[in-house]
Amino acid sequence: MVNLANLPRTIELKRDANDAPVLRYVDERLLPGELRIESTGDWCQVICAIKELAVRGAPAIGVAGAAAVALWAGNVGCAEARRFGCEEVLPRFMSGLSDAAHEIANARPTAVNLSWAVERMCALAKEAAREGHDVSVIADELFREVRRMQKEDEAANRAMGAHGAALLAPGSRILTHCNAGSLATVFYGTALGVVYAAAEQGKVERVYADETRPVGQGARLTAWELARAGVPVTLICDNMAASIMAKGEVDAVIVGADRITANGDVANKIGTYSVAVLAAHHGIPFYVAAPSSTIDLSLATGAEIPIEQRASSEVLASPIEGVDVLNPAFDVTPASLVTKIITECGVFDPCDLARAYEMASS
Amino acid sequence: MVNLANLPRTIELKRDANDAPVLRYVDERLLPGELRIESTGDWCQVICAIKELAVRGAPAIGVAGAAAVALWAGNVGCAEARRFGCEEVLPRFMSGLSDAAHEIANARPTAVNLSWAVERMCALAKEAAREGHDVSVIADELFREVRRMQKEDEAANRAMGAHGAALLAPGSRILTHCNAGSLATVFYGTALGVVYAAAEQGKVERVYADETRPVGQGARLTAWELARAGVPVTLICDNMAASIMAKGEVDAVIVGADRITANGDVANKIGTYSVAVLAAHHGIPFYVAAPSSTIDLSLATGAEIPIEQRASSEVLASPIEGVDVLNPAFDVTPASLVTKIITECGVFDPCDLARAYEMASS
Repeated sequence: MVNLANLPRTIELKRDANDAPVLRYVDERLLPGELRIESTGDWCQVICAIKELAVRGAPAIGVAGAAAVALWAGNVGCAEARRFGCEEVLPRFMSGLSDAAHEIANARPTAVNLSWAVERMCALAKEAAREGHDVSVIADELFREVRRMQKEDEAANRAMGAHGAALLAPGSRILTHCNAGSLATVFYGTALGVVYAAAEQGKVERVYADETRPVGQGARLTAWELARAGVPVTLICDNMAASIMAKGEVDAVIVGADRITANGDVANKIGTYSVAVLAAHHGIPFYVAAPSSTIDLSLATGAEIPIEQRASSEVLASPIEGVDVLNPAFDVTPASLVTKIITECGVFDPCDLARAYEMASS
Repeated sequence: MVNLANLPRTIELKRDANDAPVLRYVDERLLPGELRIESTGDWCQVICAIKELAVRGAPAIGVAGAAAVALWAGNVGCAEARRFGCEEVLPRFMSGLSDAAHEIANARPTAVNLSWAVERMCALAKEAAREGHDVSVIADELFREVRRMQKEDEAANRAMGAHGAALLAPGSRILTHCNAGSLATVFYGTALGVVYAAAEQGKVERVYADETRPVGQGARLTAWELARAGVPVTLICDNMAASIMAKGEVDAVIVGADRITANGDVANKIGTYSVAVLAAHHGIPFYVAAPSSTIDLSLATGAEIPIEQRASSEVLASPIEGVDVLNPAFDVTPASLVTKIITECGVFDPCDLARAYEMASS
């Protein structure tokens, strides 16, 4: 029995007893051993949480980044700006906001959702400033915008779930890579949102979760959240996916995305491209589930996506003398290997992405 | 500068001060942190060492299995058989040998080299028994047979190295999976034997070593031995191989084998099949280097190879409630994905394996 009530809300902006904004988030570094909800009013702590993967997953870091802007505005920006003369309060606030936004957007480079969400916050503040609102009113507006994003994220995930579930046959055995689950979003998940929607329709026989080295989002997060939600799950090492496919035990692959370029190329967690090649070799459909905020029409192809290189210590805890280590956090899957892209607006061919973006923007 | 003098001998049967046979072996579970040479006269300890992966790699466990037979014969078998009446000594010895051989050959199921080596020892003992030799003479013969195998193994590896190096162009960047190195053999290695031979000819720019989850033979052993031998090596997670290939940074893949069937299908460490599919997709040659003792003409195809399933704790140290784990130790790469098979007799098309076997047997 699927029971999503067992899953925590990953990201939630609230007000504390003093009416100050605070962000509650799951510290995912501690899972699966401990489910700890952190609570902070400090925008810098949110940046650290994003950099250190306490909060991760493209949609989740988008909302967390927006929340960091709201925390800056509510807990720092207004007070700092008011130390200046009347005339200067709004310009000082807007300039501080711009600096903070810049720092937040640069916490991680690959997922476009982070800069998208931060830019949306800045655009809102500029609009409010143009209308001559007081900085505290702007800060309140920013707070409410994050709350809207939270609702939109969950609604988009549930819509993706419905669209994606329709692609799956009863008895489906699904392979996924990394964690594009409830833990990668505000709630419900993108790729795992499709799994939950299909499971609620009784269509999911089993999910194979790639462990996803070096950080282990599959082993620590996907396996944990699926088991907790009551979906049958089998954990495998990344290098086992091919042999499971060769045995005919995978009916579909579903993954998330960190950025999708105009031509339908998909950046996602390192190893996704490998799974896409294997799926194509075995004739298995390869689906990408991502909100339209992941689509970046400003980039023509995946070759333009900045790929984050992370510390070698993630791969090799104790260095070996004379051994180099590579640790790209993402790879790019060409559109030619993607069967369909599932967004909140429906299911699209990768070559037809601009339409998905237009539908979402209209 | 390539310097193989820095590498230990992995397996070595000797006589101690009392003339009793002892096996010296590298306990590979402790690498790369500690290079410890264990020394034992106890055949049962050798079985444990094979089961627990202190000694691993198809050629190495073949020789270690043969050494276990010699340890049984020299340190247990003769003494036990002599407790019986004159007439019974030889039959009791041969029956005990058969029981011990059975137990040794079953320590691990997939690599055919283990049963091949143990059968070779039994055949030698039967021959000596037929000739009416005393049990201590037979035990001495078995000791000498292991010493012969050790020499043959290194000579075969050096021959493979020479044959394989001829396939590589100067400046080659080679990807390998698991450890088919000196540490997987008596000395020198199979796949890495080819690397060492090519490196001595100045042909190797770099080796990419897949870490090879869950046991990490690539991270712990291949990276360590290549660095120690002076070959430039970059460690990657298994799921990164595809993106390195897509960037055009891999010129050839070379792996070892645990068993090759009559049609050229290759069983090797889990993940090898995945690398073979990726190599084919990127148009990169995929070479298998293995001694002819790895060829099992009694099996028509790879579907007949027994695949060892190991403990889930290797994949997930602390179980997660409700999460199943798969841990097959090997997979099968179909002959169609294998460019060439390199043996001590030369380089063969996978469909032409019987010829390699005949050349080795003649």
